[in-house]
Amino acid sequence: MSYRAGIVGFRGYSGEELVGILEKHGHVTPYLMEHRADSQDRPRPIGYEGPARIACTAEAVREAKLDVVFLATPPEVSMDVTPWLLEAGAKVIDLSGAFRLRTVENYKRWYKEEHTQGGLLEEAVYGLPEFYRERIAGARLISNPGCYPTAANLALRPLVAAGVVDKDYGVVCDAKSGVSGAGRKPSLKTSYCEVTENFSAYSILDHRHVPEVLMNSELNEPEFSFTAHLLPLHRGILETIYLRTVNIGSAQELVDICQRFYADSPFVRIYAPGKVPDLAAVQRTNFCDIGLKWDAYSRRTVIVSTIDNLGKGAAGQAVQNMNLVLGLPEAEGLL
Amino acid sequence: MSYRAGIVGFRGYSGEELVGILEKHGHVTPYLMEHRADSQDRPRPIGYEGPARIACTAEAVREAKLDVVFLATPPEVSMDVTPWLLEAGAKVIDLSGAFRLRTVENYKRWYKEEHTQGGLLEEAVYGLPEFYRERIAGARLISNPGCYPTAANLALRPLVAAGVVDKDYGVVCDAKSGVSGAGRKPSLKTSYCEVTENFSAYSILDHRHVPEVLMNSELNEPEFSFTAHLLPLHRGILETIYLRTVNIGSAQELVDICQRFYADSPFVRIYAPGKVPDLAAVQRTNFCDIGLKWDAYSRRTVIVSTIDNLGKGAAGQAVQNMNLVLGLPEAEGLL
Amino acid sequence: MSYRAGIVGFRGYSGEELVGILEKHGHVTPYLMEHRADSQDRPRPIGYEGPARIACTAEAVREAKLDVVFLATPPEVSMDVTPWLLEAGAKVIDLSGAFRLRTVENYKRWYKEEHTQGGLLEEAVYGLPEFYRERIAGARLISNPGCYPTAANLALRPLVAAGVVDKDYGVVCDAKSGVSGAGRKPSLKTSYCEVTENFSAYSILDHRHVPEVLMNSELNEPEFSFTAHLLPLHRGILETIYLRTVNIGSAQELVDICQRFYADSPFVRIYAPGKVPDLAAVQRTNFCDIGLKWDAYSRRTVIVSTIDNLGKGAAGQAVQNMNLVLGLPEAEGLL
Amino acid sequence: MSYRAGIVGFRGYSGEELVGILEKHGHVTPYLMEHRADSQDRPRPIGYEGPARIACTAEAVREAKLDVVFLATPPEVSMDVTPWLLEAGAKVIDLSGAFRLRTVENYKRWYKEEHTQGGLLEEAVYGLPEFYRERIAGARLISNPGCYPTAANLALRPLVAAGVVDKDYGVVCDAKSGVSGAGRKPSLKTSYCEVTENFSAYSILDHRHVPEVLMNSELNEPEFSFTAHLLPLHRGILETIYLRTVNIGSAQELVDICQRFYADSPFVRIYAPGKVPDLAAVQRTNFCDIGLKWDAYSRRTVIVSTIDNLGKGAAGQAVQNMNLVLGLPEAEGLL
Repeated sequence: MSYRAGIVGFRGYSGEELVGILEKHGHVTPYLMEHRADSQDRPRPIGYEGPARIACTAEAVREAKLDVVFLATPPEVSMDVTPWLLEAGAKVIDLSGAFRLRTVENYKRWYKEEHTQGGLLEEAVYGLPEFYRERIAGARLISNPGCYPTAANLALRPLVAAGVVDKDYGVVCDAKSGVSGAGRKPSLKTSYCEVTENFSAYSILDHRHVPEVLMNSELNEPEFSFTAHLLPLHRGILETIYLRTVNIGSAQELVDICQRFYADSPFVRIYAPGKVPDLAAVQRTNFCDIGLKWDAYSRRTVIVSTIDNLGKGAAGQAVQNMNLVLGLPEAEGLL
Repeated sequence: MSYRAGIVGFRGYSGEELVGILEKHGHVTPYLMEHRADSQDRPRPIGYEGPARIACTAEAVREAKLDVVFLATPPEVSMDVTPWLLEAGAKVIDLSGAFRLRTVENYKRWYKEEHTQGGLLEEAVYGLPEFYRERIAGARLISNPGCYPTAANLALRPLVAAGVVDKDYGVVCDAKSGVSGAGRKPSLKTSYCEVTENFSAYSILDHRHVPEVLMNSELNEPEFSFTAHLLPLHRGILETIYLRTVNIGSAQELVDICQRFYADSPFVRIYAPGKVPDLAAVQRTNFCDIGLKWDAYSRRTVIVSTIDNLGKGAAGQAVQNMNLVLGLPEAEGLL
Repeated sequence: MSYRAGIVGFRGYSGEELVGILEKHGHVTPYLMEHRADSQDRPRPIGYEGPARIACTAEAVREAKLDVVFLATPPEVSMDVTPWLLEAGAKVIDLSGAFRLRTVENYKRWYKEEHTQGGLLEEAVYGLPEFYRERIAGARLISNPGCYPTAANLALRPLVAAGVVDKDYGVVCDAKSGVSGAGRKPSLKTSYCEVTENFSAYSILDHRHVPEVLMNSELNEPEFSFTAHLLPLHRGILETIYLRTVNIGSAQELVDICQRFYADSPFVRIYAPGKVPDLAAVQRTNFCDIGLKWDAYSRRTVIVSTIDNLGKGAAGQAVQNMNLVLGLPEAEGLL
Repeated sequence: MSYRAGIVGFRGYSGEELVGILEKHGHVTPYLMEHRADSQDRPRPIGYEGPARIACTAEAVREAKLDVVFLATPPEVSMDVTPWLLEAGAKVIDLSGAFRLRTVENYKRWYKEEHTQGGLLEEAVYGLPEFYRERIAGARLISNPGCYPTAANLALRPLVAAGVVDKDYGVVCDAKSGVSGAGRKPSLKTSYCEVTENFSAYSILDHRHVPEVLMNSELNEPEFSFTAHLLPLHRGILETIYLRTVNIGSAQELVDICQRFYADSPFVRIYAPGKVPDLAAVQRTNFCDIGLKWDAYSRRTVIVSTIDNLGKGAAGQAVQNMNLVLGLPEAEGLL
């Protein structure tokens, strides 16, 4: 049984990663949907044939009988194409921020743009399989989570849900990302000479990914401090999260809470107390690795949560969502 | 008027940096003190003559009439040589952690080693010129601060001293350092293939530099959470510090407090509200650059403090201390 | 049908790569053979079980019924263990340089060490499948080629065999390699701070890999100039080869010669005239990509040949050899 | 005695480097000439005042009484502004390729553009001080050499002039450069994710810098093969040059020829036979370091020549030229 998946934005870093995963997936044939001709393909050896290319039109979607279309595009493109893609019968997995928030007002506040498809916000399902597996399986429009919120929510929600986070004290999330998170479009900010041997903080307290954490981990804005940083490396996110616990007697209890929460989730891996993952542990995978350290006297807790921003933070998670939507095993093509 | 300065440990990264600064200083002639012959010099062009080399003995110190000796050595070597260097009439500026803490008990707790020169701890002056200028000028033994605490203390102390930090809420310092901070001795941890494209947290809540912050910024251990991280780059430290303010009405007030505090300190530079420095702003300099963002509603504050770990974090600060000790202008050879 | 493969030296970079390929291979179960306990494993998430571990003894080889053993070890270890591994019934694929040259004299000249197993040199088959497929399939001891010679020989041999290289003019091979080629053992030369933002030449005209090129591409030493360089990156080799042609009328003719030569070789990919691959084209693959530019007037030719030094340059090629030895499809587990 | 120097293109990497050198020079006051307002300045600490800014007009040049103007601009801008700058009484040091070649035909062949100021080509002096010191001192328009040709010519010309290069055999120059050589303008080719962990060849046999080597080292095009490569690092060029000698009996003879040639040139440093420099030896300096290896039997010679592309390859050399033009000591502000 084979499915057919279109990819809009296949030349960007997330799109490229998606194509790579789907080419090896086994149950899905990828189709590259030419949305703009402005960007060049990479050089290829003689005789190498990539996936088929089709137009980015409703007609082409119907003709190719696409079951699902991935949007690895900026939010404004996603808003443009989603309505007619749904109408053409494809399910849509959008990797942009277009459908992650619940209201057009909230979108405007964080994205500084008008939302043109407010009517779809209610229907869109937030595509974090570890939390919303069933709803995703039945959805027509899936909003793939942001990279930063994926690492933060997977670390925080089990503890918040267990009632062991001291909210009076606040939660700090110091996040660091590789450069591919900024996309493939050339800019001074992501130029080699500006990035190598350098390191910088950005979007302090006002990153557009913040509301995704607030919504999914039940935190209020004044309780959650978030700073993004640009690492001089290609791919990977590592977040260092600081909080205080209540009702906890040992680091092992915290680890147990996480392990129980993810007992049926193959892509979240927990470390023994005091052990934390580095970026290399998750690069080029769909895993989120989580480790923590806890101080008995002061109840200060430091959690390290790490993902590949192109894997679990984008393309890998999108394929995980696709597997759910198509009724395939959740981990198909991702291990 | 010319002074004479010895350097023990001139082949390490801090030692090499010291030699480079002193060769251009103008008022000081450097002498390389051969302590161990195990490490190789770098290749040199024909005809290039480095600084003079002398033995690492009391006799050689007296014969060369050294005014001051820098120790860019591990703590145990610093403990070994400091007593006879002082006796030989040289002032000592130690870049190791040997004389930074006040008691042998505290040293043992954080360094996991016995202190063999407890008698010198009282005499040693903590060499952060922005705080202790006068005491440094009159000292015989100066303990150059750790790299992490330098960036943290320069950011925190003006605010703590002004009484605007909410200590009930706690202070988080998320610190990131380049690899040269780990020294020149080869290890798997600092091997190229382990570091490039990777990023990792270490010494979570128990880094040996923590007590230097507690002592200088008047914080108690449960109030201060510190995590160190290894950046895939050569040199530089950037710290992202999270706290809540009291008695503050605008970001400008915070900036003003810092500017007043450092009005006479040429090496601390403050940024306008909302602007923060990146590592490139301070690499290969003796500056500490500080910027911050403040949220009026929640009083959350994020400070970014950045130095070159080999500059203000080690060799640059050591020369700044030397200038004070020798009665030279504080910034001589450092701008 | 499943085979059993031992790996000695599984903690090194080539060994680690081998384990990764074999875990996904499908027809082979890997066994990690504990040769030395001095090196630490990387941290693992809770519940992660790696491949089985066995002792590095003849008894353990017999008990585990290993069909083949990979040696990702220094030459001296390979010489030590190969005799008893063969006796215990395992085929041996050695990734070191121990069995690549034909005589103990030649080994001594280039490796500056005595060869202790000269009796095995005649039996050992040079494991470059594109040239020696049949002999490899029937071999008991396979000597996996060096990384530099693999890229050089795959580029040169088709042209030399076709008689289109002007030997009077000489051949220059300017080779650049990532740091993983130097192995995992920490050294100052491969320390992060010595490598990043740096670039250097080494083993000019006397690299120990030179004789492998001379033997396989029918060149005499005075005709072949080789310089190795260390690139500030993890993995990959790119060689720029300069020569003059005879009897050639167009770049396309050169490309055609290469394409015909590798018509049945899935891992060598040729580019259109004037197009050349970069490192990214082959990283984390078993491919060798080759492109060239030719000047009609002067017959100067520049060939760019690139491989992953851990892939086609080590572990990938070793598995390709294993597939031949075990009678599996040559590309099994490598695409 | 103080001079006044304008800089057009001060926001580019070469321009930025120029400003940095001139700010510390001692005999020159820099003026930033605003040519285009499209590019943003970097963030600065409060109170930091950069050099004065003036308009990029003849009037402003006269008013500021500029003695010399540096053009760190693309060739087409240099052609535009040079005529009126000369007329306004300033000497011009152009860092672009606009005035390096002798004829408009040659310019068109290599730069693929029309030359609009052919009348100035005869007057322009090629600004390689080690070869043309006197002519530079008396020039009104100086054409600063390309980065690649600087390293190649400084290595080749002493040997060619001494008649020890076997031209029948040809000369190969395999050149590698850091990314800053491509300028500050964002492009996909110099984006971080495209460059890091990657390495590639470009402009094989047809780089626009080739004619500068042919002209200055007396080689014919068929005798000289040149390939440029992009290194994943910020700054520095290393060239590996292959040739055969005639009339040479030892490596020391070759070294002696170079040392004699550069006896009065403070910025070219020669290494002992068999020793070669790495990039780190020259980064952030105005030096060109040269080392070589020679094979007695085959007369094959490998030379390694290395510079900082922003130093001796651009801004440093431009200031060296300025010193000559203004009658200052050649090394002023550059050591």
